[in-house]
Amino acid sequence: MLTLVLAEAEVELMPAELCNHPAVIAHARQRGKQPKQILLDSNYHHAAMTQLSEGRRRGRPDITHLFLLTALESIANKQGQVRIVIHTRHEQVITVNPQTRLMRNYERFLGLLEQLFEAHVIPDKTRPLLSLQEPVSLKHVIEQQHADHVIALSKEGTPVVLPKYFTQLHKENKHHLLFLIGGFPSGSYHVDINSIADEVISLYPEMLPAWTVASELLVNYGNMCRKVSP
Amino acid sequence: MLTLVLAEAEVELMPAELCNHPAVIAHARQRGKQPKQILLDSNYHHAAMTQLSEGRRRGRPDITHLFLLTALESIANKQGQVRIVIHTRHEQVITVNPQTRLMRNYERFLGLLEQLFEAHVIPDKTRPLLSLQEPVSLKHVIEQQHADHVIALSKEGTPVVLPKYFTQLHKENKHHLLFLIGGFPSGSYHVDINSIADEVISLYPEMLPAWTVASELLVNYGNMCRKVSP
Repeated sequence: MLTLVLAEAEVELMPAELCNHPAVIAHARQRGKQPKQILLDSNYHHAAMTQLSEGRRRGRPDITHLFLLTALESIANKQGQVRIVIHTRHEQVITVNPQTRLMRNYERFLGLLEQLFEAHVIPDKTRPLLSLQEPVSLKHVIEQQHADHVIALSKEGTPVVLPKYFTQLHKENKHHLLFLIGGFPSGSYHVDINSIADEVISLYPEMLPAWTVASELLVNYGNMCRKVSP
Repeated sequence: MLTLVLAEAEVELMPAELCNHPAVIAHARQRGKQPKQILLDSNYHHAAMTQLSEGRRRGRPDITHLFLLTALESIANKQGQVRIVIHTRHEQVITVNPQTRLMRNYERFLGLLEQLFEAHVIPDKTRPLLSLQEPVSLKHVIEQQHADHVIALSKEGTPVVLPKYFTQLHKENKHHLLFLIGGFPSGSYHVDINSIADEVISLYPEMLPAWTVASELLVNYGNMCRKVSP
């Protein structure tokens, strides 16, 4: 099993301090919603975000969208080997049913997340595709998954070659692997990843987008599974 | 070298027969353009497209966007090993400079392509990131690339295991590989791929999205390159 946790994903409802900004009010009205009901998105709220703490990093649901499209449509996921969790800046936790067929259109995806923040489960409790838990720490999210090995991705980590790395973990009988991938566009994790992960690894000397990291993990994990159980 | 050709990509300007449809006129006006200047997009022009030949397959620039984000941000591309060409339904050819940093936002990407269809090169001829050629056949696009081996992806192809497949091609001294990936959401290629590709292979028994196929090729090609030249 491969669990991918998108950590500190920059997904949040409009912060209270921006709800009175004219550009935010106009954008919310255009979408038929209240400012506090819409997601912060740097593409639309750039002008308002200059006032915001860490404004250059926040408001990036597009990263989560691309990560999810990569993970959900991967061969490894289609073969039932993947679990997907989004952990946000405000420690909200979105669990995504691996069978979800996510909309390709970004505007619709924003609408879906906004609906999730209101209803907490989509489409309903009996058949949840997306569900939103109350805030819990990243450490707690990891513990809930009961993985054999927890690995954080960071350009500052130990460089690894993934095919060899997965084979090695398999030999060590580490079968349920949990990877933490940063869901933010730049900078570092806020949490001390060394204290919550068993290992911190690097795939490339420069920062990679979350979906590129996810691709590398999903394709190589799929390869390893085919090799060990042909 | 790995050349990825997104073949028969469903990217086109508004077909003349839909330019008078009220929903199309309204959407164009909202964007400050003429109907003939905007891209066909099934997400916005669904109602108008019921009248259109092959309407259920057309108007999918989102697939091209996701394919490009996957290819351009891959490790293999960052290492200078990738060429990217888009060949559309109407046989227009978009060449993408591998160093292009593509916008993540889909609306902006639509604007970029619309600009490309007007100007034919972006940002300008001295430093082109995207350029649009006059229509040429897929066969001709392939010939222009001078690849050692041309492989089409199709769920009807011969099943392969990519790590072994790439190693085998390397042993056969086939170094410049050209892959054709379907840029359409469903159905088959219009062209007879058996007559233009040296081989037709399958990665999975069901149809995969173009970006999933691209991921598999890019990650496995990158792995092979690291293995043969450590």
